[in-house]
Amino acid sequence: MTRRKKIANSIDDGGLGIVVVVVIVLYLINLTLETVPSLKKTHEDIFESLEIGFTIIFTIELIIRLAVYERPVKYLFSVFGVIDVLSILPSLVGANSLALRVLRLFRVFKLFRSRRMVRAIDEIKAAIWDIRSDLVLFGFVVLILLYLSAVGIYMFEHEAQPDKFSSIPASMWWAVATLTTVGYGDVYPVTLGGRVFTAVVTLLGIGIIAIPTSLVTNALSKAKKRTRKQDVT
Amino acid sequence: MTRRKKIANSIDDGGLGIVVVVVIVLYLINLTLETVPSLKKTHEDIFESLEIGFTIIFTIELIIRLAVYERPVKYLFSVFGVIDVLSILPSLVGANSLALRVLRLFRVFKLFRSRRMVRAIDEIKAAIWDIRSDLVLFGFVVLILLYLSAVGIYMFEHEAQPDKFSSIPASMWWAVATLTTVGYGDVYPVTLGGRVFTAVVTLLGIGIIAIPTSLVTNALSKAKKRTRKQDVT
Amino acid sequence: MTRRKKIANSIDDGGLGIVVVVVIVLYLINLTLETVPSLKKTHEDIFESLEIGFTIIFTIELIIRLAVYERPVKYLFSVFGVIDVLSILPSLVGANSLALRVLRLFRVFKLFRSRRMVRAIDEIKAAIWDIRSDLVLFGFVVLILLYLSAVGIYMFEHEAQPDKFSSIPASMWWAVATLTTVGYGDVYPVTLGGRVFTAVVTLLGIGIIAIPTSLVTNALSKAKKRTRKQDVT
Amino acid sequence: MTRRKKIANSIDDGGLGIVVVVVIVLYLINLTLETVPSLKKTHEDIFESLEIGFTIIFTIELIIRLAVYERPVKYLFSVFGVIDVLSILPSLVGANSLALRVLRLFRVFKLFRSRRMVRAIDEIKAAIWDIRSDLVLFGFVVLILLYLSAVGIYMFEHEAQPDKFSSIPASMWWAVATLTTVGYGDVYPVTLGGRVFTAVVTLLGIGIIAIPTSLVTNALSKAKKRTRKQDVT
Repeated sequence: MTRRKKIANSIDDGGLGIVVVVVIVLYLINLTLETVPSLKKTHEDIFESLEIGFTIIFTIELIIRLAVYERPVKYLFSVFGVIDVLSILPSLVGANSLALRVLRLFRVFKLFRSRRMVRAIDEIKAAIWDIRSDLVLFGFVVLILLYLSAVGIYMFEHEAQPDKFSSIPASMWWAVATLTTVGYGDVYPVTLGGRVFTAVVTLLGIGIIAIPTSLVTNALSKAKKRTRKQDVT
Repeated sequence: MTRRKKIANSIDDGGLGIVVVVVIVLYLINLTLETVPSLKKTHEDIFESLEIGFTIIFTIELIIRLAVYERPVKYLFSVFGVIDVLSILPSLVGANSLALRVLRLFRVFKLFRSRRMVRAIDEIKAAIWDIRSDLVLFGFVVLILLYLSAVGIYMFEHEAQPDKFSSIPASMWWAVATLTTVGYGDVYPVTLGGRVFTAVVTLLGIGIIAIPTSLVTNALSKAKKRTRKQDVT
Repeated sequence: MTRRKKIANSIDDGGLGIVVVVVIVLYLINLTLETVPSLKKTHEDIFESLEIGFTIIFTIELIIRLAVYERPVKYLFSVFGVIDVLSILPSLVGANSLALRVLRLFRVFKLFRSRRMVRAIDEIKAAIWDIRSDLVLFGFVVLILLYLSAVGIYMFEHEAQPDKFSSIPASMWWAVATLTTVGYGDVYPVTLGGRVFTAVVTLLGIGIIAIPTSLVTNALSKAKKRTRKQDVT
Repeated sequence: MTRRKKIANSIDDGGLGIVVVVVIVLYLINLTLETVPSLKKTHEDIFESLEIGFTIIFTIELIIRLAVYERPVKYLFSVFGVIDVLSILPSLVGANSLALRVLRLFRVFKLFRSRRMVRAIDEIKAAIWDIRSDLVLFGFVVLILLYLSAVGIYMFEHEAQPDKFSSIPASMWWAVATLTTVGYGDVYPVTLGGRVFTAVVTLLGIGIIAIPTSLVTNALSKAKKRTRKQDVT
């Protein structure tokens, strides 16, 4: 194995890969703390220096990758290559808007690049692929359920609470908050009809919303069994 | 295959069927946006024109169906036929009240008419039919649980919060919001007794409410296994 | 079969049994509506008449049962016999306090007396009995979890919100509302420490709270399989 | 069996063990009630006496253990030995601060010391060990999901509600309360973008948050099957 290949392996799965992960986590912590107003105000210069530092590190990382990979151009146009470029470009050209900063966030997905993770993700992908038709059907059922719930509650509550259930789209917000059982409490029915409707819809609907989750879980446990059998064979 | 039959197939499963689905989705979007007060005010004429347009399209669709189906009268009295008629009738006679508009909403179920969907729905129906006796039993248990919870909280909280827990029916609203874990926060116990009662009821009750959901999920996964075995044989 | 035995069978599983169930449901509806202040005020005389009517019907029912059963004394001291006596006694002696009325509520359990229900309930009982040791362990774990969560949040939030997290018992209320994911929103942490603690506790705890439910569901589906195998054999 | 050994067995699994458990439960009740301001004020002397009493009992317990165990020094440095020392030390040296009192709380874990419990806990440990790699992966996925949700809602809501979504860490609180479906209602989106984002994130996210729970439950039921097979063999 040539030295170039060794570094390429190391940066993907070995020691250098761990360094990359650590740097990304530090970068995310930096990005997170930068949004805290009290910290931002008192330590603005530190955040600016760190920003420059991270840009330099990420640029060096990209250069090393392009230097050691066998097909640098192919990497540059792969998902991770694009993420790499997008995450350093804004700082290089001096731009620092919120929208551009978000692009850099995708760097977090690089955390999933280790060989082990990739295998686990492939397993999950295969499991979900197996039940794609059911997921589409139930995803569709969930959408219809949310829509009909919104229309129903709109009819019952629109007159009593015209500001909260002002329209069907506004009532959709109630439907999502209720059927996911989050229940913030910012919108809730007050009329008798609206409450009876809510009772029926939640008692029936929560079960329906839970079905896709169960489908995914079942598919995952089946996929695991299959993998184990293959390992045995 | 005659030309008539070809169109009949196309409108149910083929290219024309997709057109019908697209039109229905557009119609629902139109219906939804029409309820937004700000849009309604500024674009009332557009909504009125669209309403007329959709009525024309749905009328043409119905006429085509009646022309190409072998038994047009039978279709007219089937579920989807009735929906078709009800969804165009109000606009034809010039009526446009809220109650009539709801009838047109049932058009959404036409989305489930493709052959693939029908098979998936049959599978679900069979799965639920298998566990109908358990579902009835647990549906019944859930109702009793909601009722006894409402009676209990009414006894504990009625004196402390006579406006919120004014009666057993009013307390039922609390029972539904709590045992489904939605928890809007509009009604909650404040007395020690009421809180201890709530703790006991939720810790025991949430599990009971979840049982019908689990039953349905289990039945679905069993039904799928069965279908696959049949496909193999 | 003697006529006496025929009536005894009919009142437990046959036509008379259905009459009894219908009367109980009507009685519960009456009891429920009686708590609605607006109805109570305007129709007090009707409720009083109905109360007398139901007492007469229940008394006749008890007399018939004692007359047709082979061992009337044994019935009188069985669970349902005691419920029968308790549900008519208060009205007979003219008392009508809230506490006594509650006794009459237990009549609702008579709804579970039909032979079919009894078998289903036995199945559930057997399923729960199978996993009794796990249920005790996890019930215990849930209690400890609730207790430690309450102690933790008390330490973090007591100073910031001395009125809401006034003591460990008061904090238990928060723990129940949070870990069951009901989340009324009447008490919630406001300090950084309290919020981090809540995040850790909920992310770990919700799964633990869900385990007893899963155990019961699994046990039920196993019990069903067993019953079917026995039916085949 | 020598008398020493008999006492050692009794204190771990037999009659003395039950006494220890009862004392710990009483101690926890005392600790809990002590935090209730109204009780603390009126009965301070009683709580102080009880504190002294419990310290004496726990000290005697520790002395007995050290006297009857074969390797007292090894016990002293085991988890439970350290808990024993820490739970009596503060009172012995006269300190009674909140932080030290918490140490004594760990005594609650002594409740899990009976032989039966230890076996059940070992079973759970083995089950969790089996799925450790999946748990790490999904724990990681959940963290990323919470983080990205927080960043997303921060971008949508920061301007509209700068006090509630002041920073990404503050938005994390919203993400935890929402994705666990607790939904206190202290923070919720108000902008259209924020609400659409919340709908997408909750509908997808709740299922993902539920996966680790399902994994644990599945692993537990598998572990039980295995144990039963071993018992049969």
